[in-house]
Amino acid sequence: MITRMSSLFLRTLREDPADAEVPSHRLLVRAGYVRRVAPGGYSWLPLGLRVLRRIERIVREEMDAIGGQEIQFPALLPREPYEASGRWTEYGPSLFRLKDRKGADHLLGPTHEELFTLTVKGEFSSYKDYPVVLYQVQTKYRDEERPRAGILRGREFVMKDSYSFDLDDEGLERSYQLHRAAYQRIFDRLGLRYVIVSATSGAMGGSASEEFLAEAPTGEDTFVRSTGSDFAANVEAVVTPAPPAQPVEDKPEAQVHHTPDTPTIDSLVGFLNSAGLGRSFTAADTLKNVLVKTRQPGAKDWELLAVGLPGDREVDLKRLESAVYPAEVALLEEADFRNNPFLVKGYIGPGALLANGVRYLVDPRVVTGTAWVTGADKADHHVVDLVCGRDFTPDGTIEAAEVREGDPAPDGEGTLVAARGIEIGHIFQLGRKFADAFGLDALGPDSKPIRITMGSYGIGVSRLVAAIAEQHHDELGLVWPASVAPASVYLVVAGKNEEIRAGGERIAAELDAAGIEVILDDRTVSPGVKFADAELVGVPYIVVAGRGLANGVVEVKRRSTGDRTDVEVGALVDHLRTALDA
Amino acid sequence: MITRMSSLFLRTLREDPADAEVPSHRLLVRAGYVRRVAPGGYSWLPLGLRVLRRIERIVREEMDAIGGQEIQFPALLPREPYEASGRWTEYGPSLFRLKDRKGADHLLGPTHEELFTLTVKGEFSSYKDYPVVLYQVQTKYRDEERPRAGILRGREFVMKDSYSFDLDDEGLERSYQLHRAAYQRIFDRLGLRYVIVSATSGAMGGSASEEFLAEAPTGEDTFVRSTGSDFAANVEAVVTPAPPAQPVEDKPEAQVHHTPDTPTIDSLVGFLNSAGLGRSFTAADTLKNVLVKTRQPGAKDWELLAVGLPGDREVDLKRLESAVYPAEVALLEEADFRNNPFLVKGYIGPGALLANGVRYLVDPRVVTGTAWVTGADKADHHVVDLVCGRDFTPDGTIEAAEVREGDPAPDGEGTLVAARGIEIGHIFQLGRKFADAFGLDALGPDSKPIRITMGSYGIGVSRLVAAIAEQHHDELGLVWPASVAPASVYLVVAGKNEEIRAGGERIAAELDAAGIEVILDDRTVSPGVKFADAELVGVPYIVVAGRGLANGVVEVKRRSTGDRTDVEVGALVDHLRTALDA
Repeated sequence: MITRMSSLFLRTLREDPADAEVPSHRLLVRAGYVRRVAPGGYSWLPLGLRVLRRIERIVREEMDAIGGQEIQFPALLPREPYEASGRWTEYGPSLFRLKDRKGADHLLGPTHEELFTLTVKGEFSSYKDYPVVLYQVQTKYRDEERPRAGILRGREFVMKDSYSFDLDDEGLERSYQLHRAAYQRIFDRLGLRYVIVSATSGAMGGSASEEFLAEAPTGEDTFVRSTGSDFAANVEAVVTPAPPAQPVEDKPEAQVHHTPDTPTIDSLVGFLNSAGLGRSFTAADTLKNVLVKTRQPGAKDWELLAVGLPGDREVDLKRLESAVYPAEVALLEEADFRNNPFLVKGYIGPGALLANGVRYLVDPRVVTGTAWVTGADKADHHVVDLVCGRDFTPDGTIEAAEVREGDPAPDGEGTLVAARGIEIGHIFQLGRKFADAFGLDALGPDSKPIRITMGSYGIGVSRLVAAIAEQHHDELGLVWPASVAPASVYLVVAGKNEEIRAGGERIAAELDAAGIEVILDDRTVSPGVKFADAELVGVPYIVVAGRGLANGVVEVKRRSTGDRTDVEVGALVDHLRTALDA
Repeated sequence: MITRMSSLFLRTLREDPADAEVPSHRLLVRAGYVRRVAPGGYSWLPLGLRVLRRIERIVREEMDAIGGQEIQFPALLPREPYEASGRWTEYGPSLFRLKDRKGADHLLGPTHEELFTLTVKGEFSSYKDYPVVLYQVQTKYRDEERPRAGILRGREFVMKDSYSFDLDDEGLERSYQLHRAAYQRIFDRLGLRYVIVSATSGAMGGSASEEFLAEAPTGEDTFVRSTGSDFAANVEAVVTPAPPAQPVEDKPEAQVHHTPDTPTIDSLVGFLNSAGLGRSFTAADTLKNVLVKTRQPGAKDWELLAVGLPGDREVDLKRLESAVYPAEVALLEEADFRNNPFLVKGYIGPGALLANGVRYLVDPRVVTGTAWVTGADKADHHVVDLVCGRDFTPDGTIEAAEVREGDPAPDGEGTLVAARGIEIGHIFQLGRKFADAFGLDALGPDSKPIRITMGSYGIGVSRLVAAIAEQHHDELGLVWPASVAPASVYLVVAGKNEEIRAGGERIAAELDAAGIEVILDDRTVSPGVKFADAELVGVPYIVVAGRGLANGVVEVKRRSTGDRTDVEVGALVDHLRTALDA
């Protein structure tokens, strides 16, 4: 079917929408792909819906190719399963909750782990039934505190969520790797530049979890990548390379110094360098001990945790939280210091911590044989040359120090740089959390129950429209990859005389008959308006039927490069076919 | 892709689900097409989702063919537009309402007239932009008081809703007829037996409105059809054929009789026939005057309305409500009789009604020249031979009497019989209600605004799955029309030996390569289980690869008729192609 601009439900805008913060939002609205109808709620106009559907199709094809079976759940769900899994409350205010006319609690599904688990439990019973991968492409809801950036972060959005069900960890790993490879094929077909980052350092019970981030300066997610390799990771997942341990024997003795008024690292370093100790010190030579408290899930009491790290680094609270997950973390209050008088603020050292049974974890850089200036547990006193492994032995290491650009990459190749991305996919070895909550077992060959282990895998399908637009646009408009473009050709009828008009119609019919999707700009507006809209709408090729038609020639412009070629009308179909296949 | 029963996420059930009231519900659950996950909420398992998607595709093709453009709105919508149209309150408890984290009111869209109107207003401004038809295939929500019959009446369901926007009434009529024809093509392609019934007698401002009802004894909608023609209509829309008017001159004089203790029609007829009046009477000779009160929208006061109808008929309140729409109707209370002492219960006649200014509408059978026994406005008295047009002149006629089987059809051909159906489509000339509410105008050629007139058109897409199943099943299971079946062939591998197994695989591969969708039953269960499931799942052809394979022959069974044929393996593809095209 030929799409005619004269009747297409599309009005492009010359001005950027006032609320547009990012290029994809700006251009998708200007080019008439989407319209805002509510906070975080957008309607898809005809061209936008086409792009969305094409993405959905690619996602489905690759999910089917790994044996995924598509099913579909309601979005409106009863409370009970989410109560059973604990997520009814865990989700907090980001869950849309509502009551039906009888007062029964419902929610609008954010993800469907509970329902999938229950459904598999309802259908399957034997170990022979497994493994199985189920997925849906579905509208989901999250009551975002701050919906932003158009369809990048909305309150209603389309997701592909899939779930794998396996008998054992090896099976889960296989299902996970199948998804990982399918996701790579999907994002490759969509023309996206992306990185796969480790989502956590493994604190979540050792389960693997990776995020697919489309690189974009407007992205909400920060990550680090290596200048020397493919390494990329969430900051929470960066592992600090530990220097080699050193011998302790040749180190000078630890000595306590009177260091008046040095409760901060800066004041301490300043004092040391003017104290005539015969060497100079930097913040990196000091060992800062930061106190927090942690509480295990379900536990009543908080426990002290001391984090020792080089004085030139701050604690990154998100990394710390990730490292101690699922425990929660809080800062100390005055009462905590009063109750633990051995904590001398500004002068806390390993000595008092270990003597008083405080759990003491250090940065991986604090290895055996390293010597430090640190607190002497007495106001206005520090100890110099306190050697790890000789004078104190920490309880272990922790990834809690901030990651900085220029830090060595964990894989030893190059250094880290910061980057931003849009989360477009997430794969996660859930393990047995939901199978435990709902008692999902398979009867084994020995008639004993086998607890099923699950993976969950998401792709932000509607967000992908924006992510692709973020990566594929220029100052004139959108520049869609052919795989998702709403048409292959935008045919500009550049002239009002009957010959040109009829010629445009004929060419459109020929392209259409050849299976090349065409938007025919048959409006009565000026060629200038048509050219501007052609660039804005951003399909791969712009064909101009103008005065050249008298000589049997049209101009073909490649949208992504701006390259123009004159092509004989008779050769146009072949020319475009070749170009589109390339 | 070959669908393998060995890995398909499908478990058929031997038992009917306990809550299944209708065949479609029973069979769709037993055959593993849907599963209940909440009151009025169902999940679509793989085969069910395929049928749903095929129906969606047919709907889209026919909507596109009439120039419809697909767009998509959110389901989660802000209150304001529905407040502006009045539907936020009008919908009552059937609207799902919820608040977001900031306390703002939202709803889950039941239909989207408001949003479509606002969107067209946002994009279009000139008369040259019109007409336009927009549609969406979308998940919708209604908080049904009593969700029932599986997916026939759920609380979350898929609808195609479309809206036409025209400059004038002729345009609306054209858009309406285009939809009507498209709906006929859709339902024909889906293999449905259906009738198109007038939804109302025209009381709704003269706008046309028709419903498409799939005939099914389990349907919730009742309608009447003629034994002598294609006439079919909702009971509310049946027009009573009026007998010809008669001369009044030759009629006997009206006479008041003392008729003690005759407040009911039965007691009156009994009395008359024993009163020695020289003729016999039936209830049809009496004129019953039923009093109700009506109130116009927005009005404060109720007004009396008297309905005069032959005494052998009851008032059908739904017909009465439809006839006086948009006014509301209520029965009289004691206070109403106290305030209007001229109303003598059991003996109300036209005399007092007309003398006291009560609006008096009569059944169309009460024509000029007909003589009636009716109340004399005095306890225990009736008047005989009161002649319409001579002794009283009603204010008009009203369609409020019950419709009975055997009544003459309005078109004069045959008589009426009652039937039941499932509402699968509704087309409706909305007119300017929403354009008025939102000020949707087009700038005319004379630069004056033209108020747009709209139509709204719905198809219950998910309900169609059930409606088709209601019409296409037998005692063994579902019997899908080829246009929507989840596959064309169910291939039973009937035997465990390697030759039969390999033969089945080979045949499945050949069918698949020929583009014939096949479900391959490669399970290790007995042939009996496979045959039962093949019938239950209900795709058009069942191919049995069994012992006959040794002679190069398989059995082909047509599901709908049970006809069996032996077919040579080499001729199978051609045989099935021919059969499926037939």
